[in-house]
Parts: sequence; C-alpha cells; structure tokens
Amino acid sequence: MANATLTISSKNYSSWSLRGWLLVRFSGLDFEEIAMPIDDPAARAELLLLSPSILVPCLVHNGIKVWDTLAIAEYLNEVRPGAGLLPRELRDRAHCRAICGEMHSGFASLRSALPMNLKAHFPGFKVWARAQTDIERIVTIWHECLGQYGGPFLFGERTAADAMFAPVVTRFVTYDVKLDPEIVAYGQRILAMPEMQQWIADAQHEVDEIDELDMEF
Amino acid sequence: MANATLTISSKNYSSWSLRGWLLVRFSGLDFEEIAMPIDDPAARAELLLLSPSILVPCLVHNGIKVWDTLAIAEYLNEVRPGAGLLPRELRDRAHCRAICGEMHSGFASLRSALPMNLKAHFPGFKVWARAQTDIERIVTIWHECLGQYGGPFLFGERTAADAMFAPVVTRFVTYDVKLDPEIVAYGQRILAMPEMQQWIADAQHEVDEIDELDMEF
Repeated sequence: MANATLTISSKNYSSWSLRGWLLVRFSGLDFEEIAMPIDDPAARAELLLLSPSILVPCLVHNGIKVWDTLAIAEYLNEVRPGAGLLPRELRDRAHCRAICGEMHSGFASLRSALPMNLKAHFPGFKVWARAQTDIERIVTIWHECLGQYGGPFLFGERTAADAMFAPVVTRFVTYDVKLDPEIVAYGQRILAMPEMQQWIADAQHEVDEIDELDMEF
Repeated sequence: MANATLTISSKNYSSWSLRGWLLVRFSGLDFEEIAMPIDDPAARAELLLLSPSILVPCLVHNGIKVWDTLAIAEYLNEVRPGAGLLPRELRDRAHCRAICGEMHSGFASLRSALPMNLKAHFPGFKVWARAQTDIERIVTIWHECLGQYGGPFLFGERTAADAMFAPVVTRFVTYDVKLDPEIVAYGQRILAMPEMQQWIADAQHEVDEIDELDMEF
C-alpha cells in the first residue's frame, strides 16, 4: 500500500494538479490519487483564480503534508535524490529553479487567456498582446535551455522544469499557437511521455462539470 | 570586494526587491546592491504587474545568475547552509517551503489592493472582500507557525519565510489593517530587525519617481 497520497482536482482543467502529479510520477514515489470534486471550494478557487490552492495539489507522505507545487518539487528532490528532479550542478539547479519560479509566480495573462483544457481544440484562436508576451518569454526560456543543455528535455534529462511547463505545452496545442520547429519538437516530446499520455487519456474520460462554474476568464 | 551583486528596484515600492535583499542579508553573503532605475522596463513591469520580473531581484554570485526570489532562497541555502534559511527538519522545511510558495504565487488581491508603500500611511483604509480573504489566510499561516514552533519568528529562528512575508508586515502598517496582538507582535519583531530598519530608512530617502508611472491598481 502506498504511503503517499496526492490530492488533485480536474485532470482536464487543473494545470497545478498536472504539475504536482507529474512531479510525483517523475520522483518514482508510489502514491495514491485523491480526486477532489470540482465543486469543492478549494478546487473551484484553484480553477477560477488560476492559481494553486492550499488543497490542490497536496502531497502527504509519511504524515508530512506539502501543499505548494514548488515545495512538492523540493520535498521530492530531498526524499528521492536519485530521481533527478533538479540538475546535478549548482549553476544548473539555480537556472532550473529560476525558470520554475517564473512559471510559478508569473504568466498571469497566459493563464487567464489560455486556460488548460485538454479536451478542447481551437484552430485559429486569437492570442492578444499580453498573453503573446508571455508566450514569447516562455519560448525564449525553452530555446535557452534546449540550446544550453542540448535536450531532449529542458535540462538534458527530465527535471522538475519539464513538469512545471507541461501544461503550457498542452495550451499551445489547444489554442493552436504558432511555434518554431524546435519548440514544436520539444512539445511533442513532452506529450509523448507515458505519464502525459496517461493523464490526457484520464482527462478525456472525465465527466465534465465545468459548465456549473462561473468561469471568469 | 564582494563577489556577489543583487539587482533591485525601488526600496519604497518593490516588495520583491525587499524579499530578495532580506534573503541575501540573512544568508550573510557579502554583496553589492545594484539599483535599477524605476523607469527601466523590467523594474516598471515588476511594480505595475506586482510580480517579480526577470531582472528584479537578480542575484549574481561567482558568475551564477539567479533571478527568481524562491530560486535565490534555495541557492543561498545551498551555498550558505549554516545561515538557517530553511528549517533543519525535513517536515519543517516542507512547511516553510509551502508557505513561501503560497506567498510567491498567491495573494494577488492583497498585492493589487495594498501595494507596498513604506513612506505612506492610510489610517482607516477600507479593505475589500478579496483582499480581506488574503489577509485572513496570511494571519492563519502566521498563527499556525507561531503556535507550532513557538516564535519569535515563523519557524522559531529566522528563515526565508520571514523574508517572504516581510513586505506584508509593512502593508499591514501602511493600510492600518486591524490585527490581533500575537500578529501585531510578530510584525513588530520583523520591523525591529536591523536589516528592516536599514531598508526602511533607505526607502524614506529615496527620490520618488512613482508619479511618472501609470499605476494600474
């Protein structure tokens, strides 16, 4: 029996749930998923406010409760140091943490204009100026990483950074964002990961309760 | 000569600058401040969008560049492990990182309604509902920490969490937020730290350029 649980909300809409879930999967920790109903106030706040809530995602491991995505990443890196969630070199770890931090606190326009929605596809979607600025910054971050560390993932091997940016990859597909070949190829590698394939398949089967929410996008 | 620099913007208005600066001071690292003019696009974005920018705060140490506040905290904790930026116990570190993460990605209503402004004082300021919810969550976080670890700081000894929440302490004073005695006393301890005294004194002498900005609060 798993001695860890991860509380998540919607697999179709909750980008923070996806980040937390990928981090735990990458760590190799055996865990049980707890799905919080989408009409729970915390799950609702997480979807409507487009920011993590106290309850989603939330890892409990050996009685230790960790309820922020970056805190989950750092915790898992401590208890599973062999999993490579952070790069081995001090300089590269600093770089990885800096871009994870940018994703964690920034890109508000992207989040509100292009919310994660795995079931949907909007060909020709019009991206407005502020969200476009966010997209350009993300593309710059990815190019710098892929150029500097040589791929296939942002820091060569798969790290927490790939989990942090994975929801963005899905948004680029959902909203038909035009990107250069290196960025498209990186996105395809993320989507091809068995963990992502499993998450997306689960999202496709999810009963959709989102219509009951007052979406404030 | 210091082998570290920290780029910051306004001492009066920039809460992210204050967080980064306190973290470096707490770490004991010798560093040189680089003040970015408030009309620089990055400094401006940081103040207007109320989120960290790529350039503020930015630590450069031995050629390693770290540009996110939490990444700076983790970096400093690695190079200065004796400074106690994170608690010693795994469980407490997870707790500390979780509340630092909440501050890093959340409380958007508090940030926009009660921006940091050390020179100002608004007795009887009216706090609206969403910012009030943020205030209540912060008060809950502080009570849990002070109760669990016994004070005087959030995790007993001074950690990164006190730096992350220090700008909130100043907002509570600036906007005359009514608080219970334990929270008031914690705030007074933060304001009495020599580092805070120095920062506040510097802010008082800062030439005010903010009128030239289009404040979007």
